[in-house]
Amino acid sequence: MAKNTNMRWRLPLICLLWEVAMIILFGVFVRFTPEASARWEEEEKKQNNITSDIENDFYYRYPSFQDVHVMIFIGFGFLMTFLQRYGFGAVGFNFLLASFGIQWAILMQGWFHSFKDGKILIGVENLINADFCVGSVCVAFGAILGKSSPVQLLIMTLFQVTLFSVNEYILLNLLHVIDAGGSMTIHTFGAYFGLTVTRILYRPNLEQSKDKQGSVYHSDIFAMIGTIFLWMYWPSFNSAVSNHGDAQHRAAINTYCSLAACVLTTVAFSSMLEKKGKLDMVHIQNATLAGGVAVGTSAEMMLPPYGSLIVGFICGIVSTVGYVYLTPFLESRLHIQDTCGIHNLHGMPGIIGGIVGAITAAAATKSVYGSEGLVKTFDFTGDYANRTPMVQGGYQAAGIFVSLAMAFAGGAIVGGILKLPIWGDAADENCFEDDVYWEVPEDEESGLYHMHDPTLKPASP
Amino acid sequence: MAKNTNMRWRLPLICLLWEVAMIILFGVFVRFTPEASARWEEEEKKQNNITSDIENDFYYRYPSFQDVHVMIFIGFGFLMTFLQRYGFGAVGFNFLLASFGIQWAILMQGWFHSFKDGKILIGVENLINADFCVGSVCVAFGAILGKSSPVQLLIMTLFQVTLFSVNEYILLNLLHVIDAGGSMTIHTFGAYFGLTVTRILYRPNLEQSKDKQGSVYHSDIFAMIGTIFLWMYWPSFNSAVSNHGDAQHRAAINTYCSLAACVLTTVAFSSMLEKKGKLDMVHIQNATLAGGVAVGTSAEMMLPPYGSLIVGFICGIVSTVGYVYLTPFLESRLHIQDTCGIHNLHGMPGIIGGIVGAITAAAATKSVYGSEGLVKTFDFTGDYANRTPMVQGGYQAAGIFVSLAMAFAGGAIVGGILKLPIWGDAADENCFEDDVYWEVPEDEESGLYHMHDPTLKPASP
Amino acid sequence: MAKNTNMRWRLPLICLLWEVAMIILFGVFVRFTPEASARWEEEEKKQNNITSDIENDFYYRYPSFQDVHVMIFIGFGFLMTFLQRYGFGAVGFNFLLASFGIQWAILMQGWFHSFKDGKILIGVENLINADFCVGSVCVAFGAILGKSSPVQLLIMTLFQVTLFSVNEYILLNLLHVIDAGGSMTIHTFGAYFGLTVTRILYRPNLEQSKDKQGSVYHSDIFAMIGTIFLWMYWPSFNSAVSNHGDAQHRAAINTYCSLAACVLTTVAFSSMLEKKGKLDMVHIQNATLAGGVAVGTSAEMMLPPYGSLIVGFICGIVSTVGYVYLTPFLESRLHIQDTCGIHNLHGMPGIIGGIVGAITAAAATKSVYGSEGLVKTFDFTGDYANRTPMVQGGYQAAGIFVSLAMAFAGGAIVGGILKLPIWGDAADENCFEDDVYWEVPEDEESGLYHMHDPTLKPASP
Repeated sequence: MAKNTNMRWRLPLICLLWEVAMIILFGVFVRFTPEASARWEEEEKKQNNITSDIENDFYYRYPSFQDVHVMIFIGFGFLMTFLQRYGFGAVGFNFLLASFGIQWAILMQGWFHSFKDGKILIGVENLINADFCVGSVCVAFGAILGKSSPVQLLIMTLFQVTLFSVNEYILLNLLHVIDAGGSMTIHTFGAYFGLTVTRILYRPNLEQSKDKQGSVYHSDIFAMIGTIFLWMYWPSFNSAVSNHGDAQHRAAINTYCSLAACVLTTVAFSSMLEKKGKLDMVHIQNATLAGGVAVGTSAEMMLPPYGSLIVGFICGIVSTVGYVYLTPFLESRLHIQDTCGIHNLHGMPGIIGGIVGAITAAAATKSVYGSEGLVKTFDFTGDYANRTPMVQGGYQAAGIFVSLAMAFAGGAIVGGILKLPIWGDAADENCFEDDVYWEVPEDEESGLYHMHDPTLKPASP
Repeated sequence: MAKNTNMRWRLPLICLLWEVAMIILFGVFVRFTPEASARWEEEEKKQNNITSDIENDFYYRYPSFQDVHVMIFIGFGFLMTFLQRYGFGAVGFNFLLASFGIQWAILMQGWFHSFKDGKILIGVENLINADFCVGSVCVAFGAILGKSSPVQLLIMTLFQVTLFSVNEYILLNLLHVIDAGGSMTIHTFGAYFGLTVTRILYRPNLEQSKDKQGSVYHSDIFAMIGTIFLWMYWPSFNSAVSNHGDAQHRAAINTYCSLAACVLTTVAFSSMLEKKGKLDMVHIQNATLAGGVAVGTSAEMMLPPYGSLIVGFICGIVSTVGYVYLTPFLESRLHIQDTCGIHNLHGMPGIIGGIVGAITAAAATKSVYGSEGLVKTFDFTGDYANRTPMVQGGYQAAGIFVSLAMAFAGGAIVGGILKLPIWGDAADENCFEDDVYWEVPEDEESGLYHMHDPTLKPASP
Repeated sequence: MAKNTNMRWRLPLICLLWEVAMIILFGVFVRFTPEASARWEEEEKKQNNITSDIENDFYYRYPSFQDVHVMIFIGFGFLMTFLQRYGFGAVGFNFLLASFGIQWAILMQGWFHSFKDGKILIGVENLINADFCVGSVCVAFGAILGKSSPVQLLIMTLFQVTLFSVNEYILLNLLHVIDAGGSMTIHTFGAYFGLTVTRILYRPNLEQSKDKQGSVYHSDIFAMIGTIFLWMYWPSFNSAVSNHGDAQHRAAINTYCSLAACVLTTVAFSSMLEKKGKLDMVHIQNATLAGGVAVGTSAEMMLPPYGSLIVGFICGIVSTVGYVYLTPFLESRLHIQDTCGIHNLHGMPGIIGGIVGAITAAAATKSVYGSEGLVKTFDFTGDYANRTPMVQGGYQAAGIFVSLAMAFAGGAIVGGILKLPIWGDAADENCFEDDVYWEVPEDEESGLYHMHDPTLKPASP
């Protein structure tokens, strides 16, 4: 019955083998894009009559890239430190899976999108897209936080990055869908993938570690570091890979507006749904971000700023109500144990984002966008030169269903793999406890912690 | 006598109503500036012969915007977490008031500065200015931290943003004053507004919660996150809305220099004024930032780097001495209870900043600035084409007095409104305590906390 | 025997005198570079036919500068908060020494590199280089963390910045070595300088404060803030002063790759070397960063991405193994007490970085770089027009030895100065304890802390 959680050989083996595989695959496939090559000066710049170094894509996208990078590593990492005894796992495992994931994503996305003459040519946009792809894994991690071993997380990352890239290819290339901020590709896919996985991994006796599923005072403040960095940098997230110029500008403004509105309705409903009117940190930490998720598709379109406010307004409500009523329901009736409530932060807002994107696309007109602007925004060129906004709206909507289908199917398969009893996940009574996988200092807090549970032995000295 | 601090209806009502008002006003008034519109490609770019997307203002200002954004939400939010039991309120209420404030500021500042053909046209510079405006509210929040309800804070934000915008309009448009980093508009106005408010809200029995006004070890480290992010990004703050090119460059350098000098004198006086020579975290957390406040007006002028060092040198001393001697005096004699000591960090340094700006402007010469540089720096064009540096210096000085007058008058009115006994602020003995407005986890620390005060019941399970 | 740790006169005196010296020297020497001067518009821009403000170096380098700034103040500061009772000292002293150091570095580096007509002309690149120089002091601080007084730290900063600048001048100007990310100038020099200093300051009875050398649960999470910000922004560090265009782009990509690989091997070896396979936070906090150090020299060269992965792969292993086996050996046999293990994070990876740089330079060919690219990358112009890649590789290797020699010699001298018994360092039993130099709040944690050591009196009320 007792599971072996000793990682001594499994974790090193998987890390070393996979990293060697990355080196080999990078060696065979990955080279610099011309803009990052020393030959740029002499070849690309001259051929394309580029007169200034500042035209290098690096200067358009690098500041946004760094903001996205902060969201993945600090944002997601610290957001999940809210658990009283899982801070090491939250930041540390997020660090591990994202570091592997970005390498595998550069390869997977590279084969689909940056493949030329047998090589993947990478530049700053590939780094952003790799971070985006890993963002979807971080979302899914939120559902199984505290219940999975690092080996499971690495395996999930391998499969999820692969499926993400396939889904992204279907949406962006086959359906020719617009989704620069990833409402569908990142959030909807990531959330329902993660929820399916946690459903498969259902632990009927998880209440044995219920006392550790809550926060303590300082862990809630650590989590706010994650929340605020996610909230602040979300305008960069939604604008990072938009077209140069007005599209990036507009996407940032819309995201800023949506997020601001979302905070107000989150606070309103958090207070309203508690009988003494007190605010719940879980809502403030999470539901305030739903507005960013939900304009991911439409932020770069001509969604007017008041439209963004409306989206944020609705999502703050939907997300907070979800935390209060839906999460307990999902757990008790559907056996979906969603540690961080990703269904409320990424699932529903992601679908709303897809719908808003479809409507905004369908409603696009030449009078609002200008002729050139319409073509540029939706890339109505080449095979798609004759697509109308209304048709585009239909394809956008189809993107939601494809993402959901991929998430459910992929999540079911990967959940099945992760259920194998060989990956070293903790027993139900040891979930949400760093001590299983980390050398934890024996300090005052662990001492006090054990006061609540005198049967648990302290970490070995 | 016992006040009703239950927010269940008041807070949701104000949040929802005001957000609906924002949506309506944004719907009527707010549109994208041409540089953020899909029509940019086809209209503005061609009309203005713009050959590259990188000329979009987004690329000049977005990195600075994000730094300013971090200062408002992480910087101010975490700086105020130093209180042992008010971390949720510090970060959370700052998050709430700033999220509302930026929306209202976009409208207020928009009507004054970006209004064209019945619409407010917004771009990245509007986002920065909205953050700046809210910065002044965050300053004032520091004076009443721990003593006010979230409803009071939202009401204060509504009025203060309004008054800020009027004052800013008087200074920038009527007096034609230069104040890119806001020594006068943000810091002087914000600080004396907040001090007037807290004077009106004087609580004679506040010593009943004196034990909670201090910090604990980890809360001081949380506060340092705020301090350091404010300190690091202040060069972006003071340069964010300066003219493109050399002015932004210069403002960043001067702010960097002033802040560096300020740390040294803060440490010197913190050690010197304690009998065992030990450093006080309150000084390190706050007075080190005074140098940034005090070059807010002059940083983009040709204040030489050594001038910045002198300003920082002086402000570190003034601010630290203020914490040691002036804050207790203000409390005991003038009944000004200034939780964060904003008079030392924003008040006096703000006035110094206004004075330094006036002197630097008055001393400007063509030999230092060049003819074009002088015109560009002080915008001596149109109606102001014949203004001399000396006259400009006079107007700069007038700006200080206008800001002070607006702050005192506005603060008195708003303080009077906030004094009404209907907004749900806490009783004196419950100040500086998150438990009043937040569901607080019952953890080891609160357990310990209650050891000091066994009469206080723990939060309901 | 009992040392006098009262800083009341020594610390203020040194801070004030030195800051006055800075003001005088800045007054005599420091002026704005043309790009930061109000005369830019009218002089430089016209003379050089610059058509757009965006060509100002500010826009090429400012975002990277801010990232580097975060690394120095948040990164190094919080990385060192892992000690249970030295968080104030870690962040606060780092703040102090860096604030002084950047001023002195602007002067020292200015005399060597930006001196024109008797003036040092500063712009954003000088700010980055000053931060870099101070980075090497922060590295050395890691070796003596918890064992030194703030006066000692300021004295070390004065000398180390001076020696750094001389060493940098020898490498960059005399040997014409490439080292944009500072594997040699920053990390190798900083680490071996610090290790030599701590060797000289050897404390035979340091085990008296052994109980405070560990972490507590929350201090480890604070430290992860430092780790993750260093890790995320390292691509900016290594690309900040590279040539405009492809070189900055490439340096960022290579650093990103190396760091990602490094995390995997760090986790692998951390788990493998503990008998229960548990991860050690010390390794995750430090060894994951070694990959950034080790591509500091070569990242801007045409090191291919798989090459970066290999470097990161190796450094994760070397650094983690160093923490497990080498640090205890250095302490017990060589009497080198290295608090943060800088030998593992900066020493060995720095040397590896120098070697990788030498090999990459020696292997450079026209077919890979293009003729212009080769000249531009290695600056084969003027006196160096005829230098071949192979010869460049030799000079690169020589740079390692020069840096080591400067570090050992300089460290020995400075260590000797710091050993004088007048600087107020703490007694062995009071090391790693904030209470010596800081007013520490008497809180629950210190209460608990004293449970372990009932003889220690609490801080005076």
